This record gives sequence, C-alpha cells and structure tokens, in this order.
Amino acid sequence: MADIIDGKAFAASLRASIAAEVAALSFQPGLAVVLVGDDPASKVYVANKARQTVEVGMRSFEHRLPAETTQATLLALVQSLNADAAVHGILVQLPLPRHLDADAIIAAISPAKDVDGLTVTNAGLLANGLPGLVPCTPLGCILLLHDRLGGMTGLNAVVIGRSNLVGKPIAQLLLQQNCTVTIAHSKTRDLPTLCRGADILIAAVGRPEMIKGDWIKPGATVIDVGINRVPAAAPGKTKLVGDVAFAEAAGVAGIITPVPGGVGPMTIACLLRNTLTAAKRIESRATLVSEV
Amino acid sequence: MADIIDGKAFAASLRASIAAEVAALSFQPGLAVVLVGDDPASKVYVANKARQTVEVGMRSFEHRLPAETTQATLLALVQSLNADAAVHGILVQLPLPRHLDADAIIAAISPAKDVDGLTVTNAGLLANGLPGLVPCTPLGCILLLHDRLGGMTGLNAVVIGRSNLVGKPIAQLLLQQNCTVTIAHSKTRDLPTLCRGADILIAAVGRPEMIKGDWIKPGATVIDVGINRVPAAAPGKTKLVGDVAFAEAAGVAGIITPVPGGVGPMTIACLLRNTLTAAKRIESRATLVSEV
Ligand SMILES: NC(=O)c1ccc[n+]([C@@H]2O[C@H](COP(=O)([O-])OP(=O)(O)OC[C@H]3O[C@@H](n4cnc5c(N)ncnc54)[C@H](OP(=O)(O)O)[C@@H]3O)[C@@H](O)[C@H]2O)c1
Ligand SMILES: NC(=O)c1ccc[n+]([C@@H]2O[C@H](COP(=O)([O-])OP(=O)(O)OC[C@H]3O[C@@H](n4cnc5c(N)ncnc54)[C@H](OP(=O)(O)O)[C@@H]3O)[C@@H](O)[C@H]2O)c1
Repeated sequence: MADIIDGKAFAASLRASIAAEVAALSFQPGLAVVLVGDDPASKVYVANKARQTVEVGMRSFEHRLPAETTQATLLALVQSLNADAAVHGILVQLPLPRHLDADAIIAAISPAKDVDGLTVTNAGLLANGLPGLVPCTPLGCILLLHDRLGGMTGLNAVVIGRSNLVGKPIAQLLLQQNCTVTIAHSKTRDLPTLCRGADILIAAVGRPEMIKGDWIKPGATVIDVGINRVPAAAPGKTKLVGDVAFAEAAGVAGIITPVPGGVGPMTIACLLRNTLTAAKRIESRATLVSEV
Repeated sequence: MADIIDGKAFAASLRASIAAEVAALSFQPGLAVVLVGDDPASKVYVANKARQTVEVGMRSFEHRLPAETTQATLLALVQSLNADAAVHGILVQLPLPRHLDADAIIAAISPAKDVDGLTVTNAGLLANGLPGLVPCTPLGCILLLHDRLGGMTGLNAVVIGRSNLVGKPIAQLLLQQNCTVTIAHSKTRDLPTLCRGADILIAAVGRPEMIKGDWIKPGATVIDVGINRVPAAAPGKTKLVGDVAFAEAAGVAGIITPVPGGVGPMTIACLLRNTLTAAKRIESRATLVSEV
C-alpha cells in the first residue's frame, strides 16, 4: 500500500513557515484579489484566499466588482494595483464573465506582481530557467515531490496534460529538477504503456479516475492534480475524485496524493508563497533604487 | 537506406518563396545585424546573413563595432534600432566579448523585432502557444519535418538536449504539432532505450556521433542539429560531423538529415522568414494605428 501524501498537513506547515518569515520582515506583504461577478465557487475560493492571507500576517485587499463590469474598468483597477506600493501580488479570479477579455486583463498585470504566474513574461522566465513567478498548482506539486523524493535527477517523469496553467509548467519544473520529462495529452498513443515507464506520474487531465492501477509502475510516485465532481453513492449527492483511480493505484504506487486533500490544499499555500517571493523582490529592488 | 533530407535545397526553395513574398509587399523589410569584435567564425556568419538578406530583396543593415565596445554603447545601438522604422528584425551576433552582458543586451531588443526568438517574451509566447518569433534552428527543424511527414499527431518525439536556444523550443514546437514529447539531457538514464521508442528523434547535444545506429527505431525520422568539428583522415585537416553516427543511422532510419547540409542551411533561411513575419506584423500594426 502506497504512502499517502497529506497535502493538507503539508500546506499548513508551509503556511506556518511563511507566517514566520512574514513576521520577521520590516514591511507587510499585501495580496490583492479581484473577483468579477458572483460565481458561487469563485466566491468560496476568494474568501478562502483572503482568510489564509490574513492568517499568515499579510494584508488582503479584496475587490469585488459586479458581473457587468467593463473591460476598461477592470483594466484601470489592475493598473492602479500595479502602481500601489502596498500591493505585492495581484490575482484576478478566473473564469471572468464572458464579455471580458481575460488574456488582455492578465497581460496588464505587472509580471513582478503576477502571483498566479500567468503572464507571458513569467511563462518565458520559467521556460528559460530564470527566476520569475511560477503558477501555484505546479509549484505545489514540485514542493510535495521535493519533500518526499529529495533529488529527482534522472527519474522518468510523465506529465499527462499540457495546459498553460498546469501541465506545461509542471513539465518545465520537472526538467529543472533534472528529470527526463515526457508530456502526454489527448493525442498520445498507448498512454497506459507510457505511464508504466514513469517513476513520477503527474495526472492533470480532468477525467475522473481515468488512470488505472495497472498503468502505474510498482513503487512510482503519483501526483493527482485532477479535481472532478461525480455522483456519489447516496442519491442526489456528489463527491470529488481525481484523475487517478485512487484505490487501485494506491495498491501499486510507492507514494500517492489523494483527492481531495492532496495537491488541492497546496494551491493557496503556494499563492501565499509567491506573494512573499514577489514582495521580497519588489522591496529589495526598491531599497536598491533608494540607495543609488 | 534512409531518405536523406537535402537541407540546402529546401533552404533555397524557402528563400525563393520568401523573395517572392517580399517582392509583392508595398514596403521593404529590413534586418539589422550587430557584430561586436572580430571573431572570424562570427564574421563569416554575419557576411552570409547579409548576403542572403539582400538576395531575398530585403535591406541589410550591418553594424560592426570594435571588441572594446561598452555595454552602454551597445545598448544605445539596440535602442536606436528598436526605434528605426526601416528595421524590422534585429540580430545581435553571439557570442559577445566577455565584458558585455549578453542577457541584458538581448532583453533590450524589442520582442517584435527579436528575429532570433531569444527574448523572454518570445520564449513565453512559444510556451503559451501564442504567436511570437521562434528561434531559427528549431523553426528550421519543424519545417523540414512538416515537409516530409505532414501531420505529426500522436508520434513519439524524443529531443536530446534542453538548451533555451535549441532543445527546449524544439520540444515546444513538437508539442504544438501534437507529438508526445520526451526531453532528454545529460542526466537521462538509458538514453539508447529511450531513443529506440522515438518515431522522431532530434539530436541537439554537441557530441560528435554520439547517437548510434542501434539507438534508432527502424523507419524513424532523425533530425541531427549537432555541428561538431573533428579531425579528418588527412593529417592536420578537420571536418564537420553531427551528433548522430550518420552512416550507421542511415541504414536504420526512414528519413535523416546529414551534417553538413541538413539543418544547418535552414537556420539563415528561417532568420529571413522570421524577419518577413516580423515586418508584416509591424507594418500591419502601423497601418491599423494610422487608420484609427
Ligand atoms: N489542484 C488544483 O488546485 C487544481 C488547479 C488547476 C486545475 N486542477 C484540475 O486539474 C485538471 C487539469 O486542469 P487543466 O486546467 O490543466 O485542464 P485543461 O486545460 O482542460 O487540460 C487538460 C489536459 O488533459 C489532456 N487530456 C484530455 N483528455 C485526455 C485523455 N483522454 N488522455 C490524455 N490526455 C487528455 C488535454 O489534452 P489536449 O491538450 O490534447 O486537449 C489537456 O492537455 C482538472 O481536473 C482541474 O480541475 C486542479
Ligand atoms: N544547425 C544549426 O544551425 C545549429 C544552431 C545551434 C546549435 N547547433 C548545434 O547543436 C548542438 C547543440 O547546441 P546547443 O546550443 O543546444 O548546446 P548546449 O547549450 O551545449 O546544450 C547541449 C545539451 O545537450 C545535453 N547533453 C550533453 N551531453 C549529453 C549526453 N552525453 N547525453 C545526453 N544529453 C547530453 C546537455 O544536457 P544538460 O542540460 O544536462 O547539460 C544540454 O541540454 C551543438 O552541436 C551546436 O553546435 C546547430
């Protein structure tokens, strides 16, 4: 039976170490979260982010705008947050209402404050192996792997999924860790055989329990990024499952993340970590300039 | 015996199609090449680039600066080229003399004119699958593959090498072509077995004839990016070889590029193609603005 990673506990200890670092700073990092409209799931995420931001000792700035907000108004808000010295991280909660151009809004965020790591600049810094801000969920996956495996040099990693938000950045981070990295997707032939070669298997697909136990190399480390809501046994109820058939897979893998309670809780913790990283860089640059 | 790709002929036909397109434009694209110092190999490259630029009907602007040029002078030149409406592409010949900070110089090039595809912005656009300017040698590899294979969906591609200039952009382009992509490097375990699974094998290592015939899947397509100078049979003479043991490999592969005469000639042709792409984008944007 695989060792099951407790993502909730790991995220809590990460937040504790962030809180300790924040307490020792000579300034207070600030995270601004922008929510447009009233999607219920987004509201819950934003409330959780705000609460955890305050818990680690940072300032939280919440901006709730009506669903009918115009592109110009939202752009102006982003620009004012870019210019606001109290704000070190800016997160625009996605998805945005359909009449808004999300790409243009993201492009307007200063890369130095882009704590979701979504701008082209941060994607380019990651691709070129330079310091930037890395998307939160991929960062969470790597922190979990690093905690369990230590060095990953020479391990075969297979990433299923190639989205800009999850699959591709995870692949870049695994490559930085000196893994041999394979990126698979919906056009991949014979995915089961490919997966059986993986020492590290990352599932970021969005298909409930697609990855079966016999796709997994005995002893492999399996990170399940998928979050899928499916009908539960009780009529009318639903539950969350990952992209991996957990019960089967846990019998074969060496280490595995559950869903929920695996990668999921790491995402907000990594958002706070990115905010701390951004804040330290912005403030040290400000100090350098003021000393010149 | 494999089908041998004639990169010289393909590059010539690419240049001919570029020339035809340039002739039909209402303006003349311009490429500026900056050479600092007098490295003999760089001088030859720059002269070839300038000649081919003129041959396809574009304007070539050559800037030769002494080896002792300062960072400030070089930066000022790049900025003046960024602002020069007659210049659509800017290439700073690398390597630069050691006292200069090449990263800072590249970062100063306007991404819209970065025809070498080296800026963080262009790396990010490529990573996110958005239109930008792609490094020339990777683009050349994909054009050769596309010409021979047409669609590549579902093929297993293995890229050996993960440099920002060659390996990583090739991997991104193969992923865009819907290949299942594996990136290997010096820390990869059991490279021969990995290579034997490749329908498309890209060697971008810089180690003479490292990839042996029995590493290649029968019928695979092999693209050899390596350029290595080694001693020739005649005493005191040298010759160029690739990263692939060509004679052995050609007996197993279905399609293969030779060295020299394979990928090499594609690089300058793709530089001209990027200059044309950049010029058309810049001019259409200028037209849009002037119409507003
Ligand atoms: N834990 C967290 O905090 C967190 C954060 C973000 C996302 N997620 C979850 O992670 C999952 C992926 O998210 P995403 O944003 O990356 O999704 P996405 O943009 O929909 O990407 C899904 C990827 O999976 C690939 N795919 C689809 N069907 C496949 C199949 N049958 N075989 C192999 N590959 C297949 C797709 O391939 P093509 O490119 O060929 O279409 C695509 O690359 C979702 O379940 C999402 O809810 C969790
Ligand atoms: N045709 C053209 O126009 C053109 C253009 C550019 C380059 N090139 C040629 O292409 C080759 C690669 O260029 P580059 O700039 O990418 O070189 P580079 O920056 O030196 O990168 C070489 C890559 O090969 C990997 N590598 C080294 N030894 C290896 C081994 N024994 N097994 C597996 N991988 C190994 C390295 O891995 P690590 O990352 O682990 O060190 C690195 O990722 C060179 O021969 C260069 O001359 C040709």
